Amino acid sequence: MPEPQRVVIVGVGLLGGSLGLALRRRTRARVIGLSHRPATVRRARRRGVFHEGFTDSARALPGADVVVFCTPVETIVPLARRFAARLKPGALVMDVGSVKGPIVEGMKSVFHGGGTALFIGAHPMAGSEKSGVENAAADLFVGATCALTPAADTPPAALRRAADFWRSVGAHPVVVSPSVHDRAVALVSHLPHLIADALALTAGRWGQNPSERKALRSLAAGSFRDATRVAGADPDLWRGIFDSNAAPLGRAARDFQRTLGGLVARRWPRPELRAAQRFHDEFLRG
Amino acid sequence: MPEPQRVVIVGVGLLGGSLGLALRRRTRARVIGLSHRPATVRRARRRGVFHEGFTDSARALPGADVVVFCTPVETIVPLARRFAARLKPGALVMDVGSVKGPIVEGMKSVFHGGGTALFIGAHPMAGSEKSGVENAAADLFVGATCALTPAADTPPAALRRAADFWRSVGAHPVVVSPSVHDRAVALVSHLPHLIADALALTAGRWGQNPSERKALRSLAAGSFRDATRVAGADPDLWRGIFDSNAAPLGRAARDFQRTLGGLVARRWPRPELRAAQRFHDEFLRG
Repeated sequence: MPEPQRVVIVGVGLLGGSLGLALRRRTRARVIGLSHRPATVRRARRRGVFHEGFTDSARALPGADVVVFCTPVETIVPLARRFAARLKPGALVMDVGSVKGPIVEGMKSVFHGGGTALFIGAHPMAGSEKSGVENAAADLFVGATCALTPAADTPPAALRRAADFWRSVGAHPVVVSPSVHDRAVALVSHLPHLIADALALTAGRWGQNPSERKALRSLAAGSFRDATRVAGADPDLWRGIFDSNAAPLGRAARDFQRTLGGLVARRWPRPELRAAQRFHDEFLRG
Repeated sequence: MPEPQRVVIVGVGLLGGSLGLALRRRTRARVIGLSHRPATVRRARRRGVFHEGFTDSARALPGADVVVFCTPVETIVPLARRFAARLKPGALVMDVGSVKGPIVEGMKSVFHGGGTALFIGAHPMAGSEKSGVENAAADLFVGATCALTPAADTPPAALRRAADFWRSVGAHPVVVSPSVHDRAVALVSHLPHLIADALALTAGRWGQNPSERKALRSLAAGSFRDATRVAGADPDLWRGIFDSNAAPLGRAARDFQRTLGGLVARRWPRPELRAAQRFHDEFLRG
C-alpha cells in the first residue's frame, strides 16, 4: 500500500475547503491547509477541512506531493513564484482558477521541467454564488466536470496523476487547451455573470420609483430570479476573473449584444427563436 | 350553501389545464373546458381537467358565472368579441395573458359596463418553459403572485370576486395598473426570455467548430443553464407576447444593453458589481 499523499491546499474558502472535506472523506490523503489569514485557518479548522492548518508556507509546503492553489485567480502565479523553491521535484502543482491561459503562461517561468515541480492547470466546474469555508461541502465536486489544461510539454504521466486526483474527489476530468477553455468559459460562465449584473442594475434603476419597485418585486418570475442569481456572487472575486479573461469576455459580450440587438430590431424572427429552442433542447444534452 | 359556480376555461393547455385541475381539487366549481381543437379537448379530458369539454362555444358558454381565457395573448380579445353576446350580465370574464395593457384596452369595446359581462385582466405568475395539458398541475398556482389589472371603471365588487377566484386556487392577488404591469414584466420576464434566446444563439454559433462545441458543452456551468433555461419555451407563444409588449420590451432591452455595454467598456467597475450584488441580496426579498 503506497504512503498517503501529502496534499497542500493553498486558500481554504469555498473551493479549497470543499476539496479538503472531499479528500478527507474519500481518500487517504494527508490534507494540509494554508492561508495567510489566521482567522481563515481557524474557521477552516472548525469545519474540519484539513488535518493540519498553517499561516506559514515554510511549515506547510515541505514534503508536499500535491499542491492545489484555491486562491483568487490573480494571486495564483505570484504565490507559486514565492513557493516554488520549497517544492520537491516531481511534486504536482495545480490550481482551480476560472481562467487558464494567463495562469498556464505565467507558470512556464515558475516551473520549467526537469528538477522542479510540475504544473497543470485545472478548473473544476463547481462552486456557487456563495463563498467562504462555511459553504464548503464534501460533495461539491461529485459529478462536476473538471477541465485540465496541460501545456505542450506536460508529461503524460503528470496529466494522468492530475486526472486521478480529480476523479478521487468525484469529478470528471476533461482535457482542453487553455485558449479553448478560456473562450468557452467567457461565454458560458463569465458572460452570464455580467448579464446577471447588468439585469440587476437595470431593475435596480427602474425600481427607484416605489410603485414600479413594488410591481417589479411582485412580478419577478422564475426566469428573472434564474437570470440574476449569480449577481449575488462576490464582486471582488469576479472582477479578478473578468480582468484575467478580458479579451475573450469582451468578444463574447459583443457577439451576444449584436445577437440580442438583432432579435429586438428585427422583432424576434421566428427562425431565430426556433434555433434558440433547438439549441436548448439538443446542444446541452446531445 | 350557494350553487357551485360554472367556470368556463377557454384554452386547455398548460395554464388552462392547471386551472381546471386546481378548481376541481380545491373548489366546488363546475368546470367547463373549451377549445376549437377536438384533439386538445380529448387530451384535456384524459387528464381530467374539466367536468365537461366542448369544441362548440354555443354549448360551453351559456350559464357561465366565470370565463377565463387561457389562450395565446393575441387571440384573447378577438375570441371575447365572438363570445360576448352569449355571456350573461354580471358574468366575470378574465384572461391569464402575459401582457395586460392591449387586452384591457381591447376589452373596453367588448364589455361596456351595465348589462354586459365584466372583464378584469389577470396574470398569474406561473408557468414554465414547458407547455401543453400534459404538463398541467393542480398546484401550479399555489403560492404564485397573480396580477389583477382592473380598469378605472371596474366595480370594486368585481375586483373582489376576481381576487377570491385566484385565492381559491392558491394564488396571491396583487392589484397593479396595466401599464405598470407591462413595463415590469417587460423587464423581469420578457427580456430574460430574449436574453436566453440571444445567449443560446451565440453559443450555437460559437459551437459550430467541433472542439469549441465540446468545450462549451462540457464547461457549461449552472449559470449558463439557468440563463438559457427559458430558451426552451414555445417560440410561437412567446412571439405573440413580445409583439403585444413590443414598446416596453424594446425599452427594457435598450436599457439593459446600455448597462451591459457600460460594464464591459469600463471594465466592470467595482461600485456597479457591488450594487448588483446588493440588488440581488435585498431587492428581491426586501
